[in-house]
Amino acid sequence: MSKVTKQITEPVALLFQGKNFAFVSTLMKDGSPQITPTWVDIEKNNEYSILVNTAEGRIKHKNLLRDPRLAISVVNGSNPYEMVTIRGKVTEQITQDAAEEHIDKLAKKYLGVDKYPGRSPGEKRIILRIKPEKVFYQPPIR
Amino acid sequence: MSKVTKQITEPVALLFQGKNFAFVSTLMKDGSPQITPTWVDIEKNNEYSILVNTAEGRIKHKNLLRDPRLAISVVNGSNPYEMVTIRGKVTEQITQDAAEEHIDKLAKKYLGVDKYPGRSPGEKRIILRIKPEKVFYQPPIR
Repeated sequence: MSKVTKQITEPVALLFQGKNFAFVSTLMKDGSPQITPTWVDIEKNNEYSILVNTAEGRIKHKNLLRDPRLAISVVNGSNPYEMVTIRGKVTEQITQDAAEEHIDKLAKKYLGVDKYPGRSPGEKRIILRIKPEKVFYQPPIR
Repeated sequence: MSKVTKQITEPVALLFQGKNFAFVSTLMKDGSPQITPTWVDIEKNNEYSILVNTAEGRIKHKNLLRDPRLAISVVNGSNPYEMVTIRGKVTEQITQDAAEEHIDKLAKKYLGVDKYPGRSPGEKRIILRIKPEKVFYQPPIR
């Protein structure tokens, strides 16, 4: 049975720590939904927050500047019947060196390389910190 | 480089025919985005349309009755850097026998069994037919 919580629990954190893609949904200007597959990171201070690294001016970023509400979903690559869906908000944007270092950290996680190979000239990276409001977790059933 | 088209092309159809999960984003009553991983099917008549099978009364279904706009994304399970994202609308809902047979077809595709094992008592299945309006395809790059 799936469980609904307000915060991220340990098994959910594991899904985000794994080499799984996240699917992030934001709102277009006309209010319609948009979705993008993306790398993802998770951080624990007092509570867990989810970190997505994007570049300034991308659709996702523009949408979230206008409306910070989003949904994010991750499925276990080794067992797609374990999954989590989160609804929440972007509460902070982190730019400059921290964001550049963070995309390298993600390149290490997902590609096994030290430097992110996808940089475009002039591209400015941004970390979006996401605070979960509703977490729907479905533990592995098969 | 990614390509934007109005209709589904052959390589995109292959992603939907494969045993890949789709992530479907719809709009909650307050306009915020919601997302669910789901099985998916694709059909060709004159043009391709995407078929998602859900049950009456699920969040996704309620949301789409209120606002038919959605986004759907699929990543190649064997190469996550091949991906497609579609924005579009639900144009038709198919119920009764056709929808019950269709969920069995999906159970065959995803689980290799003849009958969908997840039926709840009284559950009514519904096929949502989705017409794509914008298709963003990223061919495999690595």
